[in-house]
Amino acid sequence: MTQANLLYAHSGGVTAVINATAAAVIGAARACPDRIGKVFAARHGILGALAEDLVDTACLDDAALQRLSLRPGGVFGSCRFDLPRNDGKRVMDRLFEVFAAHQIGYFLYNGGNGSMDAVARMSDAAAERGYPLVCVGVPKTVDNDIVGTDCCPGFGSAAKYLATSMLEAGLDIASMVGSRGSVFVMEVMGRNTGWLAAATALAAGGNADAAPQIVLVPEARFDEEAFLAEVRRVTERLGYCAITVGEGIKRADGSLIMEKSRDPRGYVQLGGAGWAIARLIHERLGYKHHWAIPDYLQRAGGHWLSATDHEQAQAVGRAAVDMALAGHCACFPAIRRIADAPYRWDIAIEDAARIANLERVLPAGFLRDDGLHVTSLACDYIRPLIEGEKDQPTVGGLPDYGPFPLVSVDRRLPRWSE
Amino acid sequence: MTQANLLYAHSGGVTAVINATAAAVIGAARACPDRIGKVFAARHGILGALAEDLVDTACLDDAALQRLSLRPGGVFGSCRFDLPRNDGKRVMDRLFEVFAAHQIGYFLYNGGNGSMDAVARMSDAAAERGYPLVCVGVPKTVDNDIVGTDCCPGFGSAAKYLATSMLEAGLDIASMVGSRGSVFVMEVMGRNTGWLAAATALAAGGNADAAPQIVLVPEARFDEEAFLAEVRRVTERLGYCAITVGEGIKRADGSLIMEKSRDPRGYVQLGGAGWAIARLIHERLGYKHHWAIPDYLQRAGGHWLSATDHEQAQAVGRAAVDMALAGHCACFPAIRRIADAPYRWDIAIEDAARIANLERVLPAGFLRDDGLHVTSLACDYIRPLIEGEKDQPTVGGLPDYGPFPLVSVDRRLPRWSE
Repeated sequence: MTQANLLYAHSGGVTAVINATAAAVIGAARACPDRIGKVFAARHGILGALAEDLVDTACLDDAALQRLSLRPGGVFGSCRFDLPRNDGKRVMDRLFEVFAAHQIGYFLYNGGNGSMDAVARMSDAAAERGYPLVCVGVPKTVDNDIVGTDCCPGFGSAAKYLATSMLEAGLDIASMVGSRGSVFVMEVMGRNTGWLAAATALAAGGNADAAPQIVLVPEARFDEEAFLAEVRRVTERLGYCAITVGEGIKRADGSLIMEKSRDPRGYVQLGGAGWAIARLIHERLGYKHHWAIPDYLQRAGGHWLSATDHEQAQAVGRAAVDMALAGHCACFPAIRRIADAPYRWDIAIEDAARIANLERVLPAGFLRDDGLHVTSLACDYIRPLIEGEKDQPTVGGLPDYGPFPLVSVDRRLPRWSE
Repeated sequence: MTQANLLYAHSGGVTAVINATAAAVIGAARACPDRIGKVFAARHGILGALAEDLVDTACLDDAALQRLSLRPGGVFGSCRFDLPRNDGKRVMDRLFEVFAAHQIGYFLYNGGNGSMDAVARMSDAAAERGYPLVCVGVPKTVDNDIVGTDCCPGFGSAAKYLATSMLEAGLDIASMVGSRGSVFVMEVMGRNTGWLAAATALAAGGNADAAPQIVLVPEARFDEEAFLAEVRRVTERLGYCAITVGEGIKRADGSLIMEKSRDPRGYVQLGGAGWAIARLIHERLGYKHHWAIPDYLQRAGGHWLSATDHEQAQAVGRAAVDMALAGHCACFPAIRRIADAPYRWDIAIEDAARIANLERVLPAGFLRDDGLHVTSLACDYIRPLIEGEKDQPTVGGLPDYGPFPLVSVDRRLPRWSE
């Protein structure tokens, strides 16, 4: 195939820099008009590919791409949908029908572990069908849990947001110290891994008395009595205690701290781990308590991007196009760390099938022995990833994020019903 | 009195710009060495004054004051403590003992409605005692509920933080729209007033389809059925609905939505209004739901200050010193709006006793008739207050907030026991 069209799709939870990757993919693809024809994006990820709901990115001129690069959220929409393993032939057939109808020769899938699995399976399916498709993954996840890459675009900006939040909330609570003792709990994302929780340790800058004084991660089993004793020790020393809680923290028996009990009317209690921890402290120690749940805010903080993260998000996008043009199937561009300080990195090629559906957890050396904090090794690893700021254009005191009117590609196939 | 010392104190919840006011007070006082001797600050507000726990701000050079101006939280500490009304003589006596021991001739109290009441009462007490004290208030509160001033320093930056957060979370949730319907709830501060909730409406930029599609404020009585019908309408139209919930929203009977029920073990459920609203939607409409509670983050967002707010925080600090030097007792500098667009304002003098303990709520014209959103009048009022950004120096990817080592004033009195 000398010239084919390229299809790009977001997958899974979006990030503050996923559009930076999208813009880089589109820009790099445009730069090769002899090899790549049109550059399409699927609306709402793979569901848009199935539904033949495609955008022709020609509607975004170079200035728009530059602005898009600084806009959080996924401009084309994303979805949580895994290609079915069993009974998946019908879905795969439809995907290839859509690819054929639109002369798609390159598919770039921007996601996490599950997406790398999809990339590997779609590459196999293309080979089985004899369809000329180069399928390349592009890493992305605030959870930072993809195996085979030193870090994941999206993580650095979320880490910067959360470390800044803990720093600022720590200054606030330290101002308000009273006679009763005050506790502040911030619940952060990470069902199975504590990368984002660990990032908040950067707020302390190596000062044992600075917030956060406790960091709970899913990799360390939660010991209620040891935890409460530490909260008491810290609060008696400083008058307050700031605690980061990874949403997925678990007890020794593996059960989630996240509350899932039922109230008297039989309703499921939906309070999360942060709320449960704040309540526990209040009940057992009687301290005044506040808790914050940044939720989507932590992965959408375009007003406070990590320049390093943004640069890496663009770099993996460009590299994925290069890999696709070089005909490398079932792979993805991985970030390789060359040095911590000064931070140096480059991009290597990684096999998607090898790491698909694996999950990278915090190494043991990143956890303090008592499981109530992370070590300086964790900070050394994360620190460079939050460095640098981006100038965000504003209008009326708010970031100027658009709009980006998108132009749909005409459908050529019957509607798809799942 | 030709020369006397000045005492400054924070009061109540701190803000992202309360230190900007503190730095402006200190700087302005230093500029008048013929009238003002030393410039002291009380540690933890009025409690520090009672405990004779004072800082000599001479420890902060001009460069430190400039850095301090950009640091959130109250560097000298604050407290929630109202001067007792009954049986208050002992407390007042102690305050004047401390003032006399340190030749305090000017007391500048940086707080909200309750602090203006304290300013008025301390002025009366000084007159009764024949003690030469000029007592001036300096307005501050993220709640924006002080009567007599068009707006309150601290509000603009919190408003900017929350409007930005809603804008960014709105882009995120719009990316993730699925077949089931998604709801995002953000709970914001404001026990009795909806100023901060209203500020999030700026995120929509006048677009009825943009987040937030619903804004609940304490001034409008919560009608569960009308609310759920609107959530359903919005979600059916857009696939998602983003909702701002003021923490103090109330039912028609005046009861708080904030959950305070007991679970099967008899524990008080501490979920707030945002949680209760998210749960209600999930139970009644079955939508997927996320909720965010920025908590302290919304009033400590030094990395994303409103330049307008910061300028006003400094201006009221300088003006308070001017008023004190002019011998104006029991007053405070109020911000007066001259024009909306382009925004123009100046500072006027306001009587502290007249407005003490009053509370400024959203005017009726700022609420939509159905009580489920705010009007363009509310946006026109708030818009200028979030405008402009400040360059925040960073170190290692985080705002550079210090430290600020403080030097205590030697005690001259016996210890105080409350």
